[in-house]
Amino acid sequence: MPPPSERLQALVGRGVAEIDTPALVVDLDAMHRNVARMAEFARKHGVRWRPHAKMHKSAELARLMVEAGAIGCCVQKTAEAEAMAAGGVHDIYISNEVVAPHKLARVAVLAHQLAAEGGRLAIAVDSIEGIRRLAQAMANAHAAIDVFVEIDVGQNRCGVPPGPEAVTLAKAVAEHAALRFAGLQAYHGRAQHLRGAQERRDTIAVVIEDVVHTRKLIEAEGIAVELVTGAGSGTMVCEAASGVYGELQAGSFLFMDADYAANERDPAQPQFEHALFVKTQVIGVHKDRAICDAGHKSHAIDSGLPKVLAVDPDSELEYGNGGDEHGILRPFRGGHRLPAIGRFLWLIPGHCDPTVNLHDALVGVRGGLRSGTVERIIRVDARGALT
Amino acid sequence: MPPPSERLQALVGRGVAEIDTPALVVDLDAMHRNVARMAEFARKHGVRWRPHAKMHKSAELARLMVEAGAIGCCVQKTAEAEAMAAGGVHDIYISNEVVAPHKLARVAVLAHQLAAEGGRLAIAVDSIEGIRRLAQAMANAHAAIDVFVEIDVGQNRCGVPPGPEAVTLAKAVAEHAALRFAGLQAYHGRAQHLRGAQERRDTIAVVIEDVVHTRKLIEAEGIAVELVTGAGSGTMVCEAASGVYGELQAGSFLFMDADYAANERDPAQPQFEHALFVKTQVIGVHKDRAICDAGHKSHAIDSGLPKVLAVDPDSELEYGNGGDEHGILRPFRGGHRLPAIGRFLWLIPGHCDPTVNLHDALVGVRGGLRSGTVERIIRVDARGALT
Repeated sequence: MPPPSERLQALVGRGVAEIDTPALVVDLDAMHRNVARMAEFARKHGVRWRPHAKMHKSAELARLMVEAGAIGCCVQKTAEAEAMAAGGVHDIYISNEVVAPHKLARVAVLAHQLAAEGGRLAIAVDSIEGIRRLAQAMANAHAAIDVFVEIDVGQNRCGVPPGPEAVTLAKAVAEHAALRFAGLQAYHGRAQHLRGAQERRDTIAVVIEDVVHTRKLIEAEGIAVELVTGAGSGTMVCEAASGVYGELQAGSFLFMDADYAANERDPAQPQFEHALFVKTQVIGVHKDRAICDAGHKSHAIDSGLPKVLAVDPDSELEYGNGGDEHGILRPFRGGHRLPAIGRFLWLIPGHCDPTVNLHDALVGVRGGLRSGTVERIIRVDARGALT
Repeated sequence: MPPPSERLQALVGRGVAEIDTPALVVDLDAMHRNVARMAEFARKHGVRWRPHAKMHKSAELARLMVEAGAIGCCVQKTAEAEAMAAGGVHDIYISNEVVAPHKLARVAVLAHQLAAEGGRLAIAVDSIEGIRRLAQAMANAHAAIDVFVEIDVGQNRCGVPPGPEAVTLAKAVAEHAALRFAGLQAYHGRAQHLRGAQERRDTIAVVIEDVVHTRKLIEAEGIAVELVTGAGSGTMVCEAASGVYGELQAGSFLFMDADYAANERDPAQPQFEHALFVKTQVIGVHKDRAICDAGHKSHAIDSGLPKVLAVDPDSELEYGNGGDEHGILRPFRGGHRLPAIGRFLWLIPGHCDPTVNLHDALVGVRGGLRSGTVERIIRVDARGALT
């Protein structure tokens, strides 16, 4: 469903000032520069990039990156894969475990469909039971799928430990005719947010040792490990330079967020720009505070509150938690003025992924946030696609 | 748009076990008991109840409570008011400030429409500028609206301080023919979550003094204060017994959440039950942890992580943050067993309002979570209704 116009309040061709609030706005100029930098980075390092669509959840944006050189996209959920396929993406990797028979039947249908389009579907596994169920579903549907064995390289979430358990799983995958062992999934989510560049390099150095060791053990069994896939926007310079990772899954570089901006930039990292903003409006001004109309139904707060984009130094504002529907703005650093009622402000979300998931659409703007124009409305196709 | 069936994976008439995960499930038996207790409570205290629809965002649930005796509903956003009106609710109060001319034009259209249906629309104000804009929009549309002056009784968010500033606003409202001064909005959001029952009573006692004082000042100007409206599920026993509040806005009682359950129950408070759950499923089991498929794209974490509903004492589990798409479950208290792959679990969300806002639909179940049946799918009409 296109979002009801009365909810979105943004019209293509009209000025930025007319976008009603709150709205999730993409600075398309900044976004395109981020895409070009990422494409150039991957080309320079000779690695594939498969940006994670769990972040933007939009088939239009996934296709845009394929046109810029991406191999396809990653997703976390079966329903996200379906949304991306329906929107014209043909090479999709579910970088997560799926075990429900209902969902695996859908995975099989999708694998069939993508193969028929000349594309393909891949998925991750981390258990014998998961492999058994996946193989059963694929056999039932006479479908085939690429399978990555996930190893836990420090996230302590999904994946088996590097080493013999991964070999056991690789061998189990190789036993099933419908499953094609495609390599290793090795993603360290927490490492993305380590603040120091050297700290991230040190952490990923250990990850790479674990990956190399595991790969050697699997190959000693006569099973080729064609690809190691992983990496996020925080550590991708390490994986790209490793000679071990063949594919980068970074997604957040497209929009950047306040949390990634808080990282010390690695000198090897392209300079990505903030491209995602919540446009909000002041609805009240009181003695010591201004109140805006964006709360945590407009932006996620799991990685901290949003930052207020400073328009000029004497009006810098700090965003305080005002609950689901409000933000509480107070003068900050050199700031000493409160904005007037009706004044528009721009928030940089703490975490882009769950922020995008709150919105049915992104308002794409050209020409900057001050005086730009709405170029297009980008559907968040997989918003709420949880299953 | 009805959510695509492949995303929702719940069929009316089928058993609870068949609901695919993650899904937001309402225990309809518990919910109806909560409604009956609230209706009885309001009747006993001779107060109106106008449950807040910002919580459930569903016109069906708003109507259900009107049938049980509620006067109508509250909302926070113009788009929520539009969704409730479109779904057959005729008496709506926007308990928040609206200042954007675009939105005020929509408010005027809605006021007209509801009046034509024999219903009405009300709104809150907390500034002269807001009153001026509201009056202008209503005059432009030849519409009229009920107006509550919001006083800040301790939340430090919206509202003017109790006392003379509120009188100034009441007089300003009374000057405009299109605006009907209806009383005071006095809601203390933070007080809802003070853990001790006595602490909440003490806090609301001060609120009530402020309200009474402000009311006296306004009435001394010859302006009647017909109604004081406010109260949430945490403090409503205090406002209900005050003789000052004529209307309760509590909304969370319908579903309850882990945060409200953490309050010490006031003996005067009806015993509300948890009625909202995220059904999730174990997708991986590792040495020290099980991984489930619900993360903070399935439930809000602003008021803490969800609790795992304990099925039996030796399998009690604690939910740990696994990011956007995962939960990390570890044995808890007496628990010493990890659940198997595919096992279903039920999470009690920390905060119901922003959790509901993540979902397009609620799966309504009769007969309990163990062996009940899906009775109906409840649309979250105002999901994402931000403007």
